[in-house]
Amino acid sequence: MTQILPKQIIRAIDEFAKLPSIGPKTAERLTMYLVRFGDPTKLGDTLADLREGLRFCAQCHSFSTTELCDLCQDPSRDASLIAVVAQPLDIVAVERTGSFHGLYHVLHGVLSPIDGIGPSQLKIDTLLTRIHATDPTEIILATNATVEGETTAMYIAKQLNQHAVRVSRLAQGMPVGADVEYADQVTLARALAGRTEIAV
Amino acid sequence: MTQILPKQIIRAIDEFAKLPSIGPKTAERLTMYLVRFGDPTKLGDTLADLREGLRFCAQCHSFSTTELCDLCQDPSRDASLIAVVAQPLDIVAVERTGSFHGLYHVLHGVLSPIDGIGPSQLKIDTLLTRIHATDPTEIILATNATVEGETTAMYIAKQLNQHAVRVSRLAQGMPVGADVEYADQVTLARALAGRTEIAV
Repeated sequence: MTQILPKQIIRAIDEFAKLPSIGPKTAERLTMYLVRFGDPTKLGDTLADLREGLRFCAQCHSFSTTELCDLCQDPSRDASLIAVVAQPLDIVAVERTGSFHGLYHVLHGVLSPIDGIGPSQLKIDTLLTRIHATDPTEIILATNATVEGETTAMYIAKQLNQHAVRVSRLAQGMPVGADVEYADQVTLARALAGRTEIAV
Repeated sequence: MTQILPKQIIRAIDEFAKLPSIGPKTAERLTMYLVRFGDPTKLGDTLADLREGLRFCAQCHSFSTTELCDLCQDPSRDASLIAVVAQPLDIVAVERTGSFHGLYHVLHGVLSPIDGIGPSQLKIDTLLTRIHATDPTEIILATNATVEGETTAMYIAKQLNQHAVRVSRLAQGMPVGADVEYADQVTLARALAGRTEIAV
């Protein structure tokens, strides 16, 4: 059969289309953009190097290129505070707030019996070992406000109830900028239950 | 400042976010997918090679790796029929129908005074030269059914009215599967004007 477009264009479209949320039309448009206006070589070289020397931090299990990640090695961070997150990208979100200066622990997932993910598939045992070894004062369970995130947080809290460590959870309530009128009932119920006194 | 995630991950997110329709969140998700499950090296090598030896076909101006593209070189194609399209991807769409066996001519855009695109920015002069040289029997103007696509088709048709070549335009009407109730009035008006007799 006659080639409609050169092989390298077809190949790029095919590879883009393998990515999640990229359909065949988007794959075509991305390829055309790169051919005409973008820097395909730069993006290409960047991606080819993506896994180069990449590993998991031996302490927090986030991505790292060294035995311990930069955050775990940073002496200015408060080692007595550990935020437990599901994924490495959650660290980026928490860091963006600029209001947390402790360390992290990445679970690499949440408990999900439907998907066959139990405690042994997550980095929970290393979290417990780490808490026993480093004796932090507080563990902030910063998993998603979903059923799986809640379940995971509750499970970890239970594992720690013999241990003299404060265990907390991210507050649930109205997102900033939200209307009471349009808030879903579960969120509004949580916001009521967790109401805070106004100090005048 | 402490590096939250390894440099190669940050770089990949930044490069993805430069692409059209890819926001920072999608860029993060694509990068994470590639790190965990995908084949970043394959996608990377493919993109690095994307422009390798790529040029425009000397006759139809589609992408090619040779002087003339595969379609223009294919002796089984009907050279007496030329479909004029705006972009190379339009060729892919027409080829998918399997009902066109002529050659193509890529304009690389449409007339758009607002964007400063006049006839000299498009491959219209080479189309006219090509028609004079190869003397086809029909030119199918297969530009988009938009104001710019229509204007471009009308402009080219006018340039050809001295020439003994049949000039046609893609039919406009109801898309297959569409409801009359929900059809926009312009489409429905075109469908009425272009109604075809039912031969029983």
